[in-house]
Amino acid sequence: MGGTIKKHAMKIIRILCVVLLFVVVQNSNAQTKVERWGIYEYTIKGPLTGNPYNEVSIMAIFSKGGISRNISGFYAGDGIYKIRFMPDEIGKWEFETSSNIKKLSGKKGSFECTTPKGNNHGVVRANGLHFKYDDGTPYYPFGTTSYAWTHQGDSLAELTVETLSTSPFNKIRMGLFPKRYRYNFNEPNHFVFSGDKDEFDFTRFNPEYWDNLEKRIVQLMDMGIQADLILFHPYDSWGLSKMTREQDVFYLKYIIARLSAYRNIWWSLANEYHLIKTKSPEDWDYIGKLISEQDVYDHLMSIHNHPKQEFDWSKGWVSHISIQTHDMVHVNDLKVNLQKPAINDECGYEGNLQSEWGNLSAEEIVHRNWTALVHGVYVTHGETFADENDVLWWAKGGHLKGKSVKRIRFLREVVEQLNMNLDYNKPEAGGSNISGGNLNQGMLVYFGNHQPANWDFDFPEGNYKIELIDTWNMTIETLGEKYSGKQSIKLSGKPRTALRITKTD
Amino acid sequence: MGGTIKKHAMKIIRILCVVLLFVVVQNSNAQTKVERWGIYEYTIKGPLTGNPYNEVSIMAIFSKGGISRNISGFYAGDGIYKIRFMPDEIGKWEFETSSNIKKLSGKKGSFECTTPKGNNHGVVRANGLHFKYDDGTPYYPFGTTSYAWTHQGDSLAELTVETLSTSPFNKIRMGLFPKRYRYNFNEPNHFVFSGDKDEFDFTRFNPEYWDNLEKRIVQLMDMGIQADLILFHPYDSWGLSKMTREQDVFYLKYIIARLSAYRNIWWSLANEYHLIKTKSPEDWDYIGKLISEQDVYDHLMSIHNHPKQEFDWSKGWVSHISIQTHDMVHVNDLKVNLQKPAINDECGYEGNLQSEWGNLSAEEIVHRNWTALVHGVYVTHGETFADENDVLWWAKGGHLKGKSVKRIRFLREVVEQLNMNLDYNKPEAGGSNISGGNLNQGMLVYFGNHQPANWDFDFPEGNYKIELIDTWNMTIETLGEKYSGKQSIKLSGKPRTALRITKTD
Repeated sequence: MGGTIKKHAMKIIRILCVVLLFVVVQNSNAQTKVERWGIYEYTIKGPLTGNPYNEVSIMAIFSKGGISRNISGFYAGDGIYKIRFMPDEIGKWEFETSSNIKKLSGKKGSFECTTPKGNNHGVVRANGLHFKYDDGTPYYPFGTTSYAWTHQGDSLAELTVETLSTSPFNKIRMGLFPKRYRYNFNEPNHFVFSGDKDEFDFTRFNPEYWDNLEKRIVQLMDMGIQADLILFHPYDSWGLSKMTREQDVFYLKYIIARLSAYRNIWWSLANEYHLIKTKSPEDWDYIGKLISEQDVYDHLMSIHNHPKQEFDWSKGWVSHISIQTHDMVHVNDLKVNLQKPAINDECGYEGNLQSEWGNLSAEEIVHRNWTALVHGVYVTHGETFADENDVLWWAKGGHLKGKSVKRIRFLREVVEQLNMNLDYNKPEAGGSNISGGNLNQGMLVYFGNHQPANWDFDFPEGNYKIELIDTWNMTIETLGEKYSGKQSIKLSGKPRTALRITKTD
Repeated sequence: MGGTIKKHAMKIIRILCVVLLFVVVQNSNAQTKVERWGIYEYTIKGPLTGNPYNEVSIMAIFSKGGISRNISGFYAGDGIYKIRFMPDEIGKWEFETSSNIKKLSGKKGSFECTTPKGNNHGVVRANGLHFKYDDGTPYYPFGTTSYAWTHQGDSLAELTVETLSTSPFNKIRMGLFPKRYRYNFNEPNHFVFSGDKDEFDFTRFNPEYWDNLEKRIVQLMDMGIQADLILFHPYDSWGLSKMTREQDVFYLKYIIARLSAYRNIWWSLANEYHLIKTKSPEDWDYIGKLISEQDVYDHLMSIHNHPKQEFDWSKGWVSHISIQTHDMVHVNDLKVNLQKPAINDECGYEGNLQSEWGNLSAEEIVHRNWTALVHGVYVTHGETFADENDVLWWAKGGHLKGKSVKRIRFLREVVEQLNMNLDYNKPEAGGSNISGGNLNQGMLVYFGNHQPANWDFDFPEGNYKIELIDTWNMTIETLGEKYSGKQSIKLSGKPRTALRITKTD
């Protein structure tokens, strides 16, 4: 009798648990309002048995008026299935799920998409030879690089977030896989896949890994930083660069289902793709097309090269050039030829390593940044100072130690105050053959290693303000507010100066 | 009767004058000793009438033992004919003239060729990828540029000579024709050809012009400076870049007859040959071959390009690459491909003009010099500071004003003390991918914009001295005298440093 009571009690508890879980789940689905370009997340309990990652499919059609979007869901572990959706139009959205599991199908719901707030400007898009957010705000990429910062444990990752929060950077290049390379011999806490590092189960993901990654992506989003996600790379000792086509596709579809609703993510197919010997250009093309098809949001997508071999960035799925080179001018030529925006995602790092890619002076880094910018090409920062604990910003994050960072902030301010897309325009730069911007509403002229005593220019109609900038000492001196017609402007005769020119009336 | 006496007296005076002249001429031929690679000059009086430049030919065969050299003479004006010969072997030389004028033929003479003294090391020759004098002394070119310095009158020319005498330069690029270009609008005192600048007689030369030029060449020779003679250039308002083939040949043969005995001359067919629209690559090839045939001394010969179009320096008559480019590394590739020594004869000038070729900072010029040198490529200096009287060193000479000159002197000292031909040798530079020399007796490593904290190197057998060089502040710090085996050498962590490494035992 005692046993029967106990059995009934257990049954009631089980039922209560299910009800409670149901209430919890329902509560988490109780989002009634979502900002435009925010995330609506639908969560539902489903099968735990077998391999839900490849046996269960779930998706939903989100619709508003005549618009509808097919959104794949994903298994998040512990019997939880999620469908994440980033609405791009204000108003009431409705959805209905479908699945190969009956109890996951036919679920309906709705929410109100509201005006975005704060730094939410939507997804960054290519805009001619430049970038803008969905809401039209220009986006000037000032990225940094920390390949494996999410693989270093919470303590260091939080420090990295803190550093980023006061940095000038609005994009970070980061790998989904951990990194095995010089200065990088520590094992990560979690891997993408479940199982042991000596024997992954490439058909199951590791929820802890993804929870951590998403936490970091959200932190970046809150800071207005784009997460340029590197999907494959060659610095591998775990076989992650040698997966089969089937395993790649399984991995990629899961990434897209889980992460594509985050407005601040970009796809970088690979770092130094050429060094991944198991994949041919055709494989990269296949992967690029696959992501193009699967990603309903059309996030920015590119692939990063090794200096020995550039990629054919003319491919339709490539939204922008993500190049590694120290030739700033070549990138401009490429950009103009391909008519796509370009980011020099690796022009060398400020640091003091022995390797030439990791020991550039701050002076040279600042020079490369300015040179690129007046060519309408963006540059991604990286820092590689030797550290007794091998915590190099470029791979693990932590503190920034270099002298270029504050000068990059200064450059970003100069560019954002100018608030226009710069394109290299030699003829417009008058008698100067040095470097110019365009003179629509304004122009940025950078003299680099040149030190003219005067700069002659014939201004188009109107009056112009000219500021003389010392790019290293970060000073801005107004030379005058009313320049017009033919002018010979006296300069400082020092190198590494620039002019910012704005039309005043 | 008084008339007859007067007539006789006049006749006697005339005879005495001729005798006197004969004595003078004989005296000038009274050279009995000439240094090896010095000049033996035979002078003889001949026809004054008609056009001696193209009607009279004179030459001599100089012989010593089994050796004989056919040397063309030239008309020097005022009825004077000269044959100049540079003996290259010590001992007794004999000669005999021949001519289409009987009284100039069959003249014989001899002189003793003696051991050279002072800075006389003979003619500079290509030596693999480098240069050496005839006597085997290495020649490391540290040239400068002053296109029209011999066309500026004595006062300025003497100042230029004085400046050169205390400069680090051992070569100067200079034009035979005057120059019409920005900052160069003054007319020369003398032209190559006789006649007015509005109507030259292209069949007659102007002795005053040649006397002045030779005086300058001799001054350079005395200072150990090579005269890199530019035979044609495009900065012309006198028609000198538009002569016919016949006029060119007449001009070239005269130059060779007059100047080739000077041991310190080089032939530069053109400056920015591509801008001389009247001459095709085939014309240059013709000219190069002609000089090759005519110049018995085989002086160094090349041709200088405009950045838009390189020359095919693989031609047999081209002794070395004379390139204009700001790409220091490309020159090394070219040098290795063509297996000829290379001089970057125009990598941009230190100055403050508006044009980008004429306003580089001293820092950049010094950087380019070091970068080139560790690649085994030589660099020619130039200076273009705006001047109220338009006296820019690069064209007119005068004073040197820049900050690079003393640092080029420092570099020359560093190289000459090392006393070896440097060739870029990446693998030998150990873990460093920066820049190296070769480690035969020594090595020069330049870090440029790189700032490694340490430099790891595995030395071959022996002990090595290492000096740390600050290329801008011109300091040399000995780090140690007994480095051997595997070493990790602590550096300053600053850019623009170099290491000089010499084997001590």
